[in-house]
Amino acid sequence: MLLDDEVRLVEVRGGLGAVPGVRMAGVHAGIKPRKRDVALIAFDEAQSCAAVTTTNEIKAAPIVVSAAHLAVAGADMRALVCNSGCANACTGERGERDARATARQAATLLGARAEQVLVASTGVIGVTLPMDRVQRGIERAHAQLESGVKASHDAAEAIMTTDRVPKLAAYAYYVEGKKYVVGGIAKGSGMIAPNMATMLAFVATDFPMAHAPLQRALTAATDESFNMISVDGDMSTNDAIYAFAPASDAPAPGAFVRALRAVCLDLARAMVADGEGATKRLTVNVTSAASVTQARAVARAVINSNLVKTALYGEDPNWGRIIAAAGSVGAGMRPDAWSLAINGTPWVGRGAIELLSEAEAHRELEASEIVVGLDLGIGAEHATGWGCDLSKDYVRINASYRT
Amino acid sequence: MLLDDEVRLVEVRGGLGAVPGVRMAGVHAGIKPRKRDVALIAFDEAQSCAAVTTTNEIKAAPIVVSAAHLAVAGADMRALVCNSGCANACTGERGERDARATARQAATLLGARAEQVLVASTGVIGVTLPMDRVQRGIERAHAQLESGVKASHDAAEAIMTTDRVPKLAAYAYYVEGKKYVVGGIAKGSGMIAPNMATMLAFVATDFPMAHAPLQRALTAATDESFNMISVDGDMSTNDAIYAFAPASDAPAPGAFVRALRAVCLDLARAMVADGEGATKRLTVNVTSAASVTQARAVARAVINSNLVKTALYGEDPNWGRIIAAAGSVGAGMRPDAWSLAINGTPWVGRGAIELLSEAEAHRELEASEIVVGLDLGIGAEHATGWGCDLSKDYVRINASYRT
Repeated sequence: MLLDDEVRLVEVRGGLGAVPGVRMAGVHAGIKPRKRDVALIAFDEAQSCAAVTTTNEIKAAPIVVSAAHLAVAGADMRALVCNSGCANACTGERGERDARATARQAATLLGARAEQVLVASTGVIGVTLPMDRVQRGIERAHAQLESGVKASHDAAEAIMTTDRVPKLAAYAYYVEGKKYVVGGIAKGSGMIAPNMATMLAFVATDFPMAHAPLQRALTAATDESFNMISVDGDMSTNDAIYAFAPASDAPAPGAFVRALRAVCLDLARAMVADGEGATKRLTVNVTSAASVTQARAVARAVINSNLVKTALYGEDPNWGRIIAAAGSVGAGMRPDAWSLAINGTPWVGRGAIELLSEAEAHRELEASEIVVGLDLGIGAEHATGWGCDLSKDYVRINASYRT
Repeated sequence: MLLDDEVRLVEVRGGLGAVPGVRMAGVHAGIKPRKRDVALIAFDEAQSCAAVTTTNEIKAAPIVVSAAHLAVAGADMRALVCNSGCANACTGERGERDARATARQAATLLGARAEQVLVASTGVIGVTLPMDRVQRGIERAHAQLESGVKASHDAAEAIMTTDRVPKLAAYAYYVEGKKYVVGGIAKGSGMIAPNMATMLAFVATDFPMAHAPLQRALTAATDESFNMISVDGDMSTNDAIYAFAPASDAPAPGAFVRALRAVCLDLARAMVADGEGATKRLTVNVTSAASVTQARAVARAVINSNLVKTALYGEDPNWGRIIAAAGSVGAGMRPDAWSLAINGTPWVGRGAIELLSEAEAHRELEASEIVVGLDLGIGAEHATGWGCDLSKDYVRINASYRT
């Protein structure tokens, strides 16, 4: 049975809505014109809650308020409210008051304490929340709370900004033969805009566990997923990933750790696929590295290079830009040891020997999903990063984000 | 007289060509279609030579070969050869052989040793030099060596890649009443493409001095100029700044140090003004910082943010992006202490109070030269960074760089 538990990981529909004991709603409160903009997520039981939040020194009010709430009720969480259309960042004391009032209102409606509610916001920085609309939205969302796929979709829509599609992922896993689910929703236009107040993910499961093992599992899953589509230290003022599980003293089973990683990877890759203006997806597999740290640093350098990204957009097999980006971060590249593959085909061999003609390499780049393999020729560790191209549409979207 | 020496700094025409004892040529060798692509700079006297070169772990062959030549002939340098159209980077042993052969050929023509010649290349990475053309180019350039403004312009043109204009700067300075000149040429499409193998600057003066004080002056000037239009640790495979002065045991006079800084600042700002696809220039003055290091880190974070740059392109007064970028680098921003000015007008006060309306701030952004003042409200140090906007044309240029 144990062996079976370890290998069975089944993708299921509905994201957060696939997790028993979670009710959700996503409504239009009028913060944005026409679209859903307030999501409410409520748990039937008190939850252990883990968090990975922005390392930006300028933290949005909901990040600050949620951290305070987690400090007192991290093993006793009941709900989360998230709005889009306004980041409530750089809004001073008023912003924190508004975030606290938001939590308080949801708590009152749910019969909980304010500290048992987390808050999250995403959208434009430097604008205060229209609290009358937020309040009406929370009332409406509370009245519509439901379990299931439809409610999960509505909530995922309500946290979108420039996202074109809602992002949901869920996996069933097995512990001692019993089925559990971990599921989540997320929003984000990908690593292409790491400091845009855009990355949010809310994940839950129905296997009861304590805060500490949940936090360890979330940190590990984030390092392999959301942190591999963005630059460390370059997170936005609002970035947050919150994970919930029914409160208990139990450890986290290995099957859950794997399922959580699968959910986070799916959500992270969905962000990249939905990258602002993106026309191509890029996967960078760094192999033969001296350490995971080195492999991750090199992978991130490549997926974050504007020059790699514009060359990808132009289908220009300018592999020198990949190598220059890899060498730029002080991770310990050996100039004579690396080799490159594209879509599984050897591209540039050790000693910078081109193995594909320019025309052949160009043909590989015509695909919409590009996989670059960068073998460092140093050790035995590896890491993967996910990115997308940088198009004229990215510039158009971000030049007129607010207008 | 001393006081006079200290304050007199007079901009002069001709860049490197304004410096006595320097002969130059820039010719078309056929590495690129039609345009000049080989520059030769020769000195009448043996030169002390200082260098600041790329920190990229993948160093182009000319960087490696020039470092070896500097190690043996840093107080006895005679010439520099530079080609555009090919970076001679990621070209393995053949690349180094080609770079050495280039130096050897120029040395033979000039009656010098190979070690007395530096080499530099810029252009596409991963392509080997067409040595027959390079050799013909060096012969032609040697035959055309001349002093003066015209030759300096030709040399500045020959090192261009995507640059739209040649970049020259020179200042006269005075030591004990006697006039000297420091002048230089540079190429680069600016900080917008820090890892594009694009930044080269060659600077010379006629005041004789030793290698060590020349190196100190160059390092200090670079930190305030070229390093403030680019990210530390994100230099290209080919970036190099070389400074020359007639060899002697003398120290560097203060007037030279100031004049060198002025030349480097002018060349650096010319790169930004010529940034690929740029439609606006951005100057970021960071004040009231705890340290120069902090001020520089914050200024660099702002000028390097894609989101700040796209907002600038769209004339969108999205100041939250400036603050988010400033907070992202772990430099020690205080969330409640900063304030912003635009073009000298207070924009956002302490506590994130908007002092200009959106319409007023938008009008300020309609200018082609934007000055953002970011007061950190912490200490008494300051630094300035220079950048430009990120336009659709940047993407167009870089998507099809080689085609």
